Amino acid sequence: MTAQLSARGDVAVLVPAAGAGLRLGPGGPKALRLLAGEPLLVHAVRRVAAAPSVRLIVVAAPAAEVEAVQELLAPVAPVTVVAGGAERQESVALALAQVPPDIAIVLVHDAARALTPPDLIESVAAAVRDGHPAVIPALPVVDTIKEVAPGEIVLGTVDRSVLRSVQTPQGFRHDVLAAAHAAAADQLTDDAGLVEKAGLPVICVPGSELAMKITRPLDLILAEALLNLP
Amino acid sequence: MTAQLSARGDVAVLVPAAGAGLRLGPGGPKALRLLAGEPLLVHAVRRVAAAPSVRLIVVAAPAAEVEAVQELLAPVAPVTVVAGGAERQESVALALAQVPPDIAIVLVHDAARALTPPDLIESVAAAVRDGHPAVIPALPVVDTIKEVAPGEIVLGTVDRSVLRSVQTPQGFRHDVLAAAHAAAADQLTDDAGLVEKAGLPVICVPGSELAMKITRPLDLILAEALLNLP
Repeated sequence: MTAQLSARGDVAVLVPAAGAGLRLGPGGPKALRLLAGEPLLVHAVRRVAAAPSVRLIVVAAPAAEVEAVQELLAPVAPVTVVAGGAERQESVALALAQVPPDIAIVLVHDAARALTPPDLIESVAAAVRDGHPAVIPALPVVDTIKEVAPGEIVLGTVDRSVLRSVQTPQGFRHDVLAAAHAAAADQLTDDAGLVEKAGLPVICVPGSELAMKITRPLDLILAEALLNLP
Repeated sequence: MTAQLSARGDVAVLVPAAGAGLRLGPGGPKALRLLAGEPLLVHAVRRVAAAPSVRLIVVAAPAAEVEAVQELLAPVAPVTVVAGGAERQESVALALAQVPPDIAIVLVHDAARALTPPDLIESVAAAVRDGHPAVIPALPVVDTIKEVAPGEIVLGTVDRSVLRSVQTPQGFRHDVLAAAHAAAADQLTDDAGLVEKAGLPVICVPGSELAMKITRPLDLILAEALLNLP
């Protein structure tokens, strides 16, 4: 059954899925890797479409896969698919160009965070709606972290209380994300990093363990186990 | 079947398991929480005992549980169980007192890292044997990490290339660990941290994803899935 998106929603979600990732095995775009028989991208889009504030979903696919991705997602939700660029940042910019000006909030989401719950999408959007120009979901760092010098010599223990492990969706005021991308020049950072460089405040809201990035074989084992929970 | 430890091994492994941890649910020492029907401590000790260099295993249990832990571990491997202290550091010191002087290498291991493979125990011990006074297994930090100020305002992206997420077993020359503990005074740090404060070099060796700490419900789901792999 195809989900319906809210015609009155104020949120667009961009999913850059044009990159070829090799960490789950050789070949193929990582967003199309299978989890319980379905591509990660399908799982991700299904959950995005279930968030009540979402009016538009734009997926940036590899240029050669645009039609295939359209067919893949047609039964899941109404999705606009565009050809992505060589770099993630270019794919986000190309997807952003599809968002009409009357949509106030734009989220950027990783397809590899395939099990991200609709609630997290809503809470990021709500924080932007509440006046924060840029919002990222994040979890505390739970492991002991050491800083090392070359040769793997430990310099010391890092104060992890001020560190956050960031997830997606990252949420932005539409105009803020557009301006940050217009100003960006081949910077290797996440979208929030572009906004940081523009001098605007970025805040963290609580993330979700379910929004973990599924890249390593161990992540896939956990994700399948989570899907099989009663 | 009870494992046999090597009479010619040069390694003692200390397992401080006296703490009450609440993160997997209410009540009870976290080392005794069940994973696939067996306490985490049983899984951990079974794998420690399978490492060929290990001659001695000392578990520090809650004072009220020493006999119960002895009975629990008797079918798994020959293990010395001592009453632990109020703090982890004290439990390590009490377990360390059981190690005879002719054992050259001492490892300290978390019971919550219940699936740590024997190979990792061997590789940490081997690095100590090769002349490093203190060795910790560690993994690269894979998530984007932000540093935050009060109010969860992002200060910037942290250079994760110099960060390591540390695991156990941490390995030490026997004399180095003994001296570090003798000098320690209620310092809230890991054992490697005590050695760092003593001014001796600590190095990282590659860790293992299987050596993950099993503390949150999600970790338990992953651990059970890993145990059920064909």
